[in-house]
Amino acid sequence: MNSFKKIGLAAIGSLAVGLAGGIAPTGAQQAPTPEEQAQNAVETRQAVYKLLGWNMGPMGGMLRNKVPFDAALVEQNAHRIASLAGMIPSLFEMDTREFDVETEALPRIWEGKDAFDGKAKDLVAAAEALATTAAGGDEGATRAAIAKVGQACGSCHDDYRLED
Amino acid sequence: MNSFKKIGLAAIGSLAVGLAGGIAPTGAQQAPTPEEQAQNAVETRQAVYKLLGWNMGPMGGMLRNKVPFDAALVEQNAHRIASLAGMIPSLFEMDTREFDVETEALPRIWEGKDAFDGKAKDLVAAAEALATTAAGGDEGATRAAIAKVGQACGSCHDDYRLED
Repeated sequence: MNSFKKIGLAAIGSLAVGLAGGIAPTGAQQAPTPEEQAQNAVETRQAVYKLLGWNMGPMGGMLRNKVPFDAALVEQNAHRIASLAGMIPSLFEMDTREFDVETEALPRIWEGKDAFDGKAKDLVAAAEALATTAAGGDEGATRAAIAKVGQACGSCHDDYRLED
Repeated sequence: MNSFKKIGLAAIGSLAVGLAGGIAPTGAQQAPTPEEQAQNAVETRQAVYKLLGWNMGPMGGMLRNKVPFDAALVEQNAHRIASLAGMIPSLFEMDTREFDVETEALPRIWEGKDAFDGKAKDLVAAAEALATTAAGGDEGATRAAIAKVGQACGSCHDDYRLED
C-alpha cells in the first residue's frame, strides 16, 4: 500500500545492520518521480490530520459528556496534538497545486504559505496551553482549553480546506 | 476519503462554536459499525507508520551521507518519533483479526499484546535517547543513536509485520 514508507524503513533497517557490522551502506534507491513525490506528500499530510482527529476524538466526547473527563488523557493527547501540528508547515512545503492528486487542500495554502503556517503554529500554541491547563487539574479551565484547540482546528479548515 | 476524520473534526468545530456561544452541544452522530471501526483502526495505524517513516527519512539520509548532518533536525524528529511511537499500543487495542481489512499487521500482535507493546516502548526509549544525544551535539554518538532507532523499528517489523 505504501511503497515510500517501505523503502524508507527498509533502508533504515539495512543501514542499522550495516552500521552495527561496521559495513558502509551502499544501496542506491531509485528516486521517486515528481508525481510520486506529490502523491506521497498528499498521503503524508492526510496521515497527520488522521492522527490529529484520533487524538481530538476523546476530548470532543468529554465536551459532549459522552466520555468521562480524564485530565491525564487530555494532557497526553494535547502533547501529541502539539507534536503533530508542528509537522504541518514542513508537510506542506511541497506545492502540489500543479499535480493530479486527490486532495482537500485549497490552492490558497501556497498563495500565502506564511499565513497558513501561522495557523498551524496557533494550533501548536493552543495544544501546549491545553496540556499545561490539564496538568493543573482544573476541569472547567481544561474544558475551555479543549474548545480553544477545536477552534484552532476549525479556523484553519475554514480558510484552507475544501468545503464538503 | 476519510469520513471519520471529517465527522470527528466537524463535531469538535461545532462544539467549539457551541461552547463559545454558551450553547450546549446536542448533535448525535451515527455510531460506526464494527466493520467501519476496524477499517478506521487500520487507517489510523497506517497513519502513524507513515509519519514515523517521514520523520526517519532524513536521518537515514544522514547515515548514508546523502543529507547533511543536522543535530537540531535529528533532535526535533526524535521527539516526534517518541510521540508517535507512544500511540502504537492504543492504536492496536482494537483486535482486527476477524475483519476483512487490508493490513500488514500480523495476527500474533494480539496473541501477545504485551510483548508487542513492549517493542513500541523500546522505540519510544530509543527515540528519547536519540533526542538527548542529539541535543548534546556529539555527531558520532548521534549517528549511533539514529542506528539504534532504526534497529528498534526493524525489530518490531521482523516480528509483527507481513513480509513483502
